[in-house]
Amino acid sequence: MSSHMREDLSRNEKVQQARRVLNENKFSLDAWAVLIQDSQDKKIADSRDFYEQLVTQFPTCGKFWKIYIEAEIKARNYERVEKLFQRCLIKVLNIDLWKCYLNYVRDTKGKLQEKMAQAYDFALEKIGLDVYSYTIWNDYVNFLKSVFFSDAAGSYAENQKITAVRKVYQKGIMTPMTNVELLWKDYCSYETGINSMLAKKIIEDRSRDYLNVKRVTKELETMTRSIDRNIPCILPPVQTQTEELKQLQSWKKYIQWEKLNPLKTDDILLVTKRCMFAYEQCLLCLGYHSDIWYEAGQYLESISRHFHDKGDMQLSKKFLDDTSQLYERSISLFMKQNQLIHFSYADFEESRSNYDKVRKIYQKLLEVDDSITFDPTLAYIQYMRFERRCDGIKSARGIFKKAREDQRTQHHIYVAAALMEYYCTKDNNVAFNIFNLGLKKYGQNVDYILAYIDYMTHLNEDHNARVLFERVLSPDNQIPKQKQADIWYEFLKFESNIGDLPSIKKVEKRRNQLYQELNEFDGKEILLLIDRYKFLNLLPCDYDELKLLGYNSDYLYHHHHHHHTSTKLTNGNSVHYHPDLFQIKTADYYHKIHRDKPNYPQPDIKHMMPYRPTRNVLPGSHPTPGGVFPLPDTALYLVKVLPPPRNFEGPFVIIDELMEKIARAIIPDTYEPVRVNINGEAIRENDMNLHTTNIKKTSGGHDSDEEDQNNSQSGAPMDIYRQRQQKRVKLNDQPQPQ
Amino acid sequence: MSSHMREDLSRNEKVQQARRVLNENKFSLDAWAVLIQDSQDKKIADSRDFYEQLVTQFPTCGKFWKIYIEAEIKARNYERVEKLFQRCLIKVLNIDLWKCYLNYVRDTKGKLQEKMAQAYDFALEKIGLDVYSYTIWNDYVNFLKSVFFSDAAGSYAENQKITAVRKVYQKGIMTPMTNVELLWKDYCSYETGINSMLAKKIIEDRSRDYLNVKRVTKELETMTRSIDRNIPCILPPVQTQTEELKQLQSWKKYIQWEKLNPLKTDDILLVTKRCMFAYEQCLLCLGYHSDIWYEAGQYLESISRHFHDKGDMQLSKKFLDDTSQLYERSISLFMKQNQLIHFSYADFEESRSNYDKVRKIYQKLLEVDDSITFDPTLAYIQYMRFERRCDGIKSARGIFKKAREDQRTQHHIYVAAALMEYYCTKDNNVAFNIFNLGLKKYGQNVDYILAYIDYMTHLNEDHNARVLFERVLSPDNQIPKQKQADIWYEFLKFESNIGDLPSIKKVEKRRNQLYQELNEFDGKEILLLIDRYKFLNLLPCDYDELKLLGYNSDYLYHHHHHHHTSTKLTNGNSVHYHPDLFQIKTADYYHKIHRDKPNYPQPDIKHMMPYRPTRNVLPGSHPTPGGVFPLPDTALYLVKVLPPPRNFEGPFVIIDELMEKIARAIIPDTYEPVRVNINGEAIRENDMNLHTTNIKKTSGGHDSDEEDQNNSQSGAPMDIYRQRQQKRVKLNDQPQPQ
Repeated sequence: MSSHMREDLSRNEKVQQARRVLNENKFSLDAWAVLIQDSQDKKIADSRDFYEQLVTQFPTCGKFWKIYIEAEIKARNYERVEKLFQRCLIKVLNIDLWKCYLNYVRDTKGKLQEKMAQAYDFALEKIGLDVYSYTIWNDYVNFLKSVFFSDAAGSYAENQKITAVRKVYQKGIMTPMTNVELLWKDYCSYETGINSMLAKKIIEDRSRDYLNVKRVTKELETMTRSIDRNIPCILPPVQTQTEELKQLQSWKKYIQWEKLNPLKTDDILLVTKRCMFAYEQCLLCLGYHSDIWYEAGQYLESISRHFHDKGDMQLSKKFLDDTSQLYERSISLFMKQNQLIHFSYADFEESRSNYDKVRKIYQKLLEVDDSITFDPTLAYIQYMRFERRCDGIKSARGIFKKAREDQRTQHHIYVAAALMEYYCTKDNNVAFNIFNLGLKKYGQNVDYILAYIDYMTHLNEDHNARVLFERVLSPDNQIPKQKQADIWYEFLKFESNIGDLPSIKKVEKRRNQLYQELNEFDGKEILLLIDRYKFLNLLPCDYDELKLLGYNSDYLYHHHHHHHTSTKLTNGNSVHYHPDLFQIKTADYYHKIHRDKPNYPQPDIKHMMPYRPTRNVLPGSHPTPGGVFPLPDTALYLVKVLPPPRNFEGPFVIIDELMEKIARAIIPDTYEPVRVNINGEAIRENDMNLHTTNIKKTSGGHDSDEEDQNNSQSGAPMDIYRQRQQKRVKLNDQPQPQ
Repeated sequence: MSSHMREDLSRNEKVQQARRVLNENKFSLDAWAVLIQDSQDKKIADSRDFYEQLVTQFPTCGKFWKIYIEAEIKARNYERVEKLFQRCLIKVLNIDLWKCYLNYVRDTKGKLQEKMAQAYDFALEKIGLDVYSYTIWNDYVNFLKSVFFSDAAGSYAENQKITAVRKVYQKGIMTPMTNVELLWKDYCSYETGINSMLAKKIIEDRSRDYLNVKRVTKELETMTRSIDRNIPCILPPVQTQTEELKQLQSWKKYIQWEKLNPLKTDDILLVTKRCMFAYEQCLLCLGYHSDIWYEAGQYLESISRHFHDKGDMQLSKKFLDDTSQLYERSISLFMKQNQLIHFSYADFEESRSNYDKVRKIYQKLLEVDDSITFDPTLAYIQYMRFERRCDGIKSARGIFKKAREDQRTQHHIYVAAALMEYYCTKDNNVAFNIFNLGLKKYGQNVDYILAYIDYMTHLNEDHNARVLFERVLSPDNQIPKQKQADIWYEFLKFESNIGDLPSIKKVEKRRNQLYQELNEFDGKEILLLIDRYKFLNLLPCDYDELKLLGYNSDYLYHHHHHHHTSTKLTNGNSVHYHPDLFQIKTADYYHKIHRDKPNYPQPDIKHMMPYRPTRNVLPGSHPTPGGVFPLPDTALYLVKVLPPPRNFEGPFVIIDELMEKIARAIIPDTYEPVRVNINGEAIRENDMNLHTTNIKKTSGGHDSDEEDQNNSQSGAPMDIYRQRQQKRVKLNDQPQPQ
């Protein structure tokens, strides 16, 4: 694993290694951790560049921003600190970051009460819903209480203060958060302190709502417990995604819960605010997960619909705008290259008739300048379809032109354009021309040719179809033989549909010829014959025969192809169907396709255990080469009770003194036998033997001195061994050795 | 395996069990063997019925016929014997059976020299090419030599005799067979015995050809060595076909060799005879292998073509008739239910314009009365297509009518008929009517509906297509929801092609509705969205994302479906392609289909080790639950050198004496360290420590007595432990314990 860091290196080596690792994988958190630690011990001037890289790589990770900012604070670079806060605060609603901000304000501007109050209001507005926001609420209250008014103010000011404090209290106790009960207690005593008569009433009025909040708080705590909100956004890992997936599930559960309005409030705006707060929190950690972005957008749209239906056009529009902003944010950062989100954003704007906006979205996507991995073909197709829908065929053709001129596009654009003409303008000739135009460029691309053939054969123009077949299969058209198979298959199917026997046989013969040249023919004629008699998923032999004939290997494809279609759909009564065929197929088939460069992730089988079938495997047997036989039970027992190696890292026991201790130790007569279970199946209970031994020893059994000494030297293992041996002896009715 | 026979049973029990087994699987040779053995000890009258069952079940197995016949011979039921020979001889060219026949004739009709001679000629004609036919040739010669002529005959008769003997000799020595050299020796001495002068010349003339035959004999013997010609025909086993496959390969190799004309003769008829002899021999054992029948037919056709091209119309016709007979034989026995062979037979006769014969073939196949496993749909389709080709659309429609009236047919017949009308008569309306007719019967069959939709959407009649979609998806048309998914997918695809955004979204919404009702929706909207933006094999997200979103499970199908098509064809530059998707798909997908009874072999994963990825796994770590941490190296070393538990099964060592021995043992100064390697990576070398210890010990180091004793008690393990400890100590620069 590139991201794995070795432990046994000097600090400097580690730093070097971490840099190397990051070049491989800029998401290796281990490596970043090493460099962060390193920077924290350096002067800020020397580590600033690194911190900038850090927050650029992880722009939504409050933890990293905090580290950066704290470094600047430590160096008293307050101007920089404030610039940094400006850069991150609004975007990164991370509770710790915000607390850090408030502390900073307090420490530096504590005197300016106005500023301080603003800061608190600002914070509570942004992050007051956070489950850990109690301290902020509490600090604010205390701050307000402590506010000092000039003598001039007098009791009027005092009332103002009370109103202010009360306002914060009353908002706070309506907010589910950890320790809300403390806030409630303070509030009660605060009110009582002011006016015990009034207090009783006020508290009584609020207590029911408070209890509701308390209940919701409990739920909220359970919901968020399993969530780690400091995980930075990394590209969804494919190989070991279990942990990430767990987080994903927890987040979704939490969001779902908020959607169900646990507070049971009628204030839809509050519910929405809470839900979006959850979504925003989630996106700070899982920004690369398109489904979260999409769902958040869908949610906002649904809220907009809600207000639309209630006739509140203003709010309806507001939430549509919010949706738009959300999408905009997504594609400006994590979703830069995500076509799915771009498309759904474009559709969203299309449904609002913001056609120019839609065009901008598609153009932005098409400008993605990662020409290695990015294939714009599908984007052009969607763009083209959009223009066809909203501005007519002419504009659509314009996009098709653009796409043709773009070097990165694939053949699909021609297929899409041709079918668009066929289906929408109903103009066979234009479609025909487009297909032929594409044939000039993709005449050797079997994928394209088959799409053309599919179109042509369905058009039911036999002559043109035959012309096409002959044209693409003619020697002038250099298609590698191993790729021609599918065209020949279609040709045969075509003739079987409409041709007479001689023409069918003629095509069959030419097809066989091809396989002959590929040396895949000998004794396989019959397999090619099967293709000729096949119809949809009906095959002229049953599965056993197919398998025996080897139809499942190279010749399966067409079977597989149609078959899959049908089996997916049939009520299962297709007698010819069999899964193995597929798997076998898929297996060796991909091998073929990707023989050269497998451009897909492969499972990490480094530590996989080889599968060695055994008659009846014993627990704890060694699957690793070298130790092929199972451990004897006693040894297995020993091994299981053995502490992990790290326990041997010292300090080191002085064996002899230890042995002394053991020798002198008094073992109690009562003894709770240890039962060893592996997979619920008990090991022969050596502990019982141990047991008897111990008793024997303490009760000063008939063991000779020499033996005692021996016991004292080698301890339990020797005992176990002797007991084991004695037991055996008993089992075998032999005289005991001594 | 039902065919597996238990050993530990009384004879009678075995017989009973065998009968039971045969009820399960009439091809269980083990069971048959038991019953054969049983019958052989019974009176023929009591076992005759059984023998009849035997030869009915295995009509081409010479071995079984021989057993039956020998039983009758033993009972001197010569009439029955001859009836039996009449039933099997011609059909079953098994050398042992034929030898048995000749012996029978000799024993019973030895006196009738005419009959005897006829029998020999007959045998040599039929089976004289067999690699083991030497004895027949030899017996015949000796018989001829021994023939007794009446005195009246005299020297003229003598010459006749010589001519006869010589004729057999000369034919024999031209036939590759084991022991041909003996025949040659006899022949030479025979000629010399008659006339040494002439003999020299005659032998010289023939010796070159003979040497050729001798060479070919060697090859023939190698070719046939691995072939077991007594294996009865059994339905090709699927699960354990290795042995059968080996036989199949040997046969094919042998036949191929014959085709290459090893004798290098110009006599095509001889080559053909030898090849067909090989095919016939093979078909006695592998009669259920359709490919052998097919190849044999193809071979005869090719011979016919050969003579046709040479202008020999008579021979050309003869071999066409032979082909026809071969096919006829195949479908009258082993290929009774094999559609592939019926179709290819039908095509063969069609190409000879024997249309009535073709009709008979199709009708015969359609009359197969195994309604459980046999599905005649494809047969009707081929039959219909034949009529369309040879007698026009009217007759074809007649077959379609027949098929509709046959209860066993599936929906495919409607699809085939409709497409036939569309493609051949170009009559949309007829096709349309047929599809609608089928819809009455298969309105709930998604397979059928999709075929209809495919036709309709390609017809490019938007209105009709929409009508169709709405019709099949209307609540009145009761399609189980979980089967509707694919129709909705097609509907969405259709609208995405031609509709405007609202109509696309409308369909999408209704489709999502469906998934919601299936409870497969929550948080999966995005997966359904993917389908909407997909085009051919282009997907709006890359593989990692698809996998993370879970697109590979239920939602993969369409992706898979199209994808497979394209990937099979692309030049591999499709960036979205990934095999895992398929396998995962196939995997759980089949699980779905076959949830109830998986009728396919499954891997035995009982003892498979769970894959637990580890940071840096140590060799020998325990993957089984209970011991999750790696063994300390020393313990690992100990475990590796530990003998297998079975070594502890006794006799038992008397520990104390063993210890004594070890204590008194003199360890040599020279010592070859044991290197422990796991996966080629060396364990920290405790052996080196051991090494030093041993030297230290023998060189009487500074160890105290007590320590010596201790060593003497516990032996190597203790040493290793102390050494290990000392080593640690050194590593940590601590003072040594003692």
